[in-house]
Amino acid sequence: MKVALAQWDMVVGDVSGNATRIIEAIERADGAGAQVVVLPELAVTGYPPEDLLLRRSFVEANVEATSKIAAQTGDLVAVFGFVHPSGGVLHNAAAICQNGEIKAVYSKHLLPNYGVFDEDRYFTAGTDHHLFVATEATFGVCVCEDAWFPEGPIAVQGDAGAQVIFNINASPFHKGKVVEREQMLAERARRAGTSIVYLNTVGGQDELVFDGASLVLNAQGEVFSRLPQFEEAFEVVDVPLGPRSVNRSRQLLAGSVNRTAVGLRRAEAPGTSVVAQPLEGAAEVYAALVLALRDYARKNGFTKMVLGLSGGVDSALVATIGADALGAGNVLGLLMPSSFSSSHSVTDSEELARNLGIQTHTIAIAGAYESYLEMLKGAFGEVEMGIAEENLQARIRGNLNMAVSNRYGHLVVATGNKSEMAVGYATLYGDMAGGFALLKDVFKTEVYELCRYRNTVSQVIPENVLTKPPSAELRPGQKDQDSLPPYDVLDQVLDLYVEEDLGRKEIIASGYEEAVVDQVLRLVDRAEYKRRQAPPGPKVTTKAFGRDRRLPITNRWREA
Amino acid sequence: MKVALAQWDMVVGDVSGNATRIIEAIERADGAGAQVVVLPELAVTGYPPEDLLLRRSFVEANVEATSKIAAQTGDLVAVFGFVHPSGGVLHNAAAICQNGEIKAVYSKHLLPNYGVFDEDRYFTAGTDHHLFVATEATFGVCVCEDAWFPEGPIAVQGDAGAQVIFNINASPFHKGKVVEREQMLAERARRAGTSIVYLNTVGGQDELVFDGASLVLNAQGEVFSRLPQFEEAFEVVDVPLGPRSVNRSRQLLAGSVNRTAVGLRRAEAPGTSVVAQPLEGAAEVYAALVLALRDYARKNGFTKMVLGLSGGVDSALVATIGADALGAGNVLGLLMPSSFSSSHSVTDSEELARNLGIQTHTIAIAGAYESYLEMLKGAFGEVEMGIAEENLQARIRGNLNMAVSNRYGHLVVATGNKSEMAVGYATLYGDMAGGFALLKDVFKTEVYELCRYRNTVSQVIPENVLTKPPSAELRPGQKDQDSLPPYDVLDQVLDLYVEEDLGRKEIIASGYEEAVVDQVLRLVDRAEYKRRQAPPGPKVTTKAFGRDRRLPITNRWREA
Repeated sequence: MKVALAQWDMVVGDVSGNATRIIEAIERADGAGAQVVVLPELAVTGYPPEDLLLRRSFVEANVEATSKIAAQTGDLVAVFGFVHPSGGVLHNAAAICQNGEIKAVYSKHLLPNYGVFDEDRYFTAGTDHHLFVATEATFGVCVCEDAWFPEGPIAVQGDAGAQVIFNINASPFHKGKVVEREQMLAERARRAGTSIVYLNTVGGQDELVFDGASLVLNAQGEVFSRLPQFEEAFEVVDVPLGPRSVNRSRQLLAGSVNRTAVGLRRAEAPGTSVVAQPLEGAAEVYAALVLALRDYARKNGFTKMVLGLSGGVDSALVATIGADALGAGNVLGLLMPSSFSSSHSVTDSEELARNLGIQTHTIAIAGAYESYLEMLKGAFGEVEMGIAEENLQARIRGNLNMAVSNRYGHLVVATGNKSEMAVGYATLYGDMAGGFALLKDVFKTEVYELCRYRNTVSQVIPENVLTKPPSAELRPGQKDQDSLPPYDVLDQVLDLYVEEDLGRKEIIASGYEEAVVDQVLRLVDRAEYKRRQAPPGPKVTTKAFGRDRRLPITNRWREA
Repeated sequence: MKVALAQWDMVVGDVSGNATRIIEAIERADGAGAQVVVLPELAVTGYPPEDLLLRRSFVEANVEATSKIAAQTGDLVAVFGFVHPSGGVLHNAAAICQNGEIKAVYSKHLLPNYGVFDEDRYFTAGTDHHLFVATEATFGVCVCEDAWFPEGPIAVQGDAGAQVIFNINASPFHKGKVVEREQMLAERARRAGTSIVYLNTVGGQDELVFDGASLVLNAQGEVFSRLPQFEEAFEVVDVPLGPRSVNRSRQLLAGSVNRTAVGLRRAEAPGTSVVAQPLEGAAEVYAALVLALRDYARKNGFTKMVLGLSGGVDSALVATIGADALGAGNVLGLLMPSSFSSSHSVTDSEELARNLGIQTHTIAIAGAYESYLEMLKGAFGEVEMGIAEENLQARIRGNLNMAVSNRYGHLVVATGNKSEMAVGYATLYGDMAGGFALLKDVFKTEVYELCRYRNTVSQVIPENVLTKPPSAELRPGQKDQDSLPPYDVLDQVLDLYVEEDLGRKEIIASGYEEAVVDQVLRLVDRAEYKRRQAPPGPKVTTKAFGRDRRLPITNRWREA
């Protein structure tokens, strides 16, 4: 079967724009002689539309757009996701359209409601299946999570006679997910005896990034085609079909399976079998961050970004990703030395900026800092401000970034990493200030890996940035490692506590010092109020701070 | 039946502290000669524990605490909420304990997953019922949402023979909910032919405030006892029993109803029938805000608060609530005039502070403001900064509040109201800065109502604060009404758009000018990125910004 895969980046809320693009995909597939075109889950609304779904005007616009798209179809079958209101509830559904009409609607059976997902908040699960019976082939349709359960819709539809199943997705990226997905889909294909067309969306959406990597697997579970990661793709693939066979005994258990006769047009020209190689390790995460930043900027109307360049590894990486995502000419770095700043904080930043070709301004903050101390002295007398002094410097810098944003429209990109966000080693309204926190889900040790990876592409980040000891430079001689465990240990403990949700005893039993574990857990727990006010940033691990990890601020639970 | 109602304020995460308090309630009920003591939903963990539930160490501690509590029971029956892990899933459950053991566990049937609730994220619904059969009476137990469906657990248990049902709750407050709840419970009682003991928790928890107002209704749906709102209460009530009757025909439909024989101790002394009057209008919301602030401070370890006093109505109300919640001696007001500030901004604030008896410091911000302009001029030349200049003033004030917090440990309370939060008429990292945003869910028109209400208790807010036109005073002669619709119109449109989720056409059809509606909707949509970084604040309406309203930042949907 000749199938067009439209791995496209749909924009949340852009119902008319998305509809235009879906029609464009249909026309392009039609022109290429495909028999079926497949687009992502909730292609009409973008994913996830969140509480827009509670507004009737939005849901109605999505229904009208879906009808309009269906009206544009000819003998090519189009499969795409939309929100289907029915009987007073909403379904996360696939429309199967042909010859100017919606021939059938499949409503997602399995609604994810864990991690970043809240689908039970909006949708009611479907219970019916649809098989589409043509002379050439019988096919089925399902949506995203439906594929993840061994005896779920793919098995049912396979048993009922499907030779190929179109599984449409908005499957958020995390490291290693491509492998996980391909193993899972291979099992499903073999179990069901069907080939599978796995069509994923691509693009950045607030805290999520979708990696594409759409797949075609044959009924033996072998990868027949794979689309690239982190970019839009449109390919017409000759999808191999599974055998024509029906498992009658199983069918009795399967619930309602509706059968709809369809006529498939003749395939006009041979399709292809593209197999893009998935990215690995740091290259994959780097590409995810580039797309996340580019899409956040583009979809929110920003062309330029500003960031504070401290001479440290975090801001160096953010500037570099910024240049790759938006173009070097669209990145502005502010060098904002204080009296505690080292000379290399400026010289390293300048070298980085030259290498990248980005613009910088240097603004010494001593004057503003002194005026704050004067103001406070006037009110409170001569007192040692301590941590307040450190935070003031960070906040002056945050204010300057924001002033540039307010005046010139730049997106402020915050540079803090996941390790800092975890332990609260960042200043609220200071270095945490910004519209997007690009490294929010990247541990400090991974920041180094990403820099070293990027330097293998072209040497842009000065070696001194990668070798000097990390320091916030907010007081004389300050070094991160004076107050935190070594980053390699810290990041491992954080991984166990944050991503694995292990308790204190289990972490200690994994081989970490009691004192270190207690320190880290205490710091993480105490910083929840800061994280709650952090900008969004892209999820690249199995558990990111934000919608993926929802802890109370008011919380007396302590592991120790 | 003589029942002790322990309307207590449990702390999220404080498993050992909550267990101690539950045991205290049991001892007190025992001493008062009660036959049954009832405590809130998830009393052991506090509500809502959110993603703490994903950590095994936490769930296990809750189970251990529950066993420990059960071990303390004698012939008094104790009913309280805990998390019940069973078969690899979690239940939001009630433990029914007596004579040193957990006699039965009831798992909540109906799990709310809308508005502020995410119970499907954590819990699996129960399917069984338990009736407890004593010589004197047959009783049932259910949890919160179970009461809200006409043919739900209360009807089933009533049909099966329950004469009284204990419904344990953590039911968040919003304006008017007491009336809504009492009407609903009266219907349930009449339908089921049982009396109902509705036991609610009380207290503030991040964005939620629980109002208590626990109730006893007889089988005719009449209020027999009502506990006070917004404070802890412990009362021993002689609960009237419904008739002994079983609806056999209905029972067949009801699913599994387990029967457990229990012996009730003899009631030693007469109980009471307290009927506290519920608060109304502004008095009710005022009390909710006092408790929300007091509990946020107390449970997070703050005794003192700081706020910026602008001479405006919002900061006047926050200071007043602060004085009522924490004591006047624990409230510090910072007066931070700029060159655009009116003279009354200082004099009105000083009068307010004298009336309340709170401490103030006055810090002129002109010096810091000039130094920012100098820094920016050095980098960008002589340019008109426009909105950037306005925001700088707000951010200097935010920084000063935070410096006081960092140095002296005060909680910074942000003063912005719901109208401002809605339309983005507030500065991120400026007047939005703080640990708690007390008026986040209070419209500007309601701010005036609350002030006028509070002045009827004692005249503390200067009349000039209530009569002068609202202004941010960030540029010469600025007035809110120059750039926003009149607040009474604005608040009505916001109510329709935010709380009612109506679309543009429906709002215009309700009688508002097209231009005004378009302006308001555009402003609300554009400010989503600011709200995402706002501090938590207490929900007092049917839809608050925060976990109650979850919209994407990246969102191209526009109603116009």
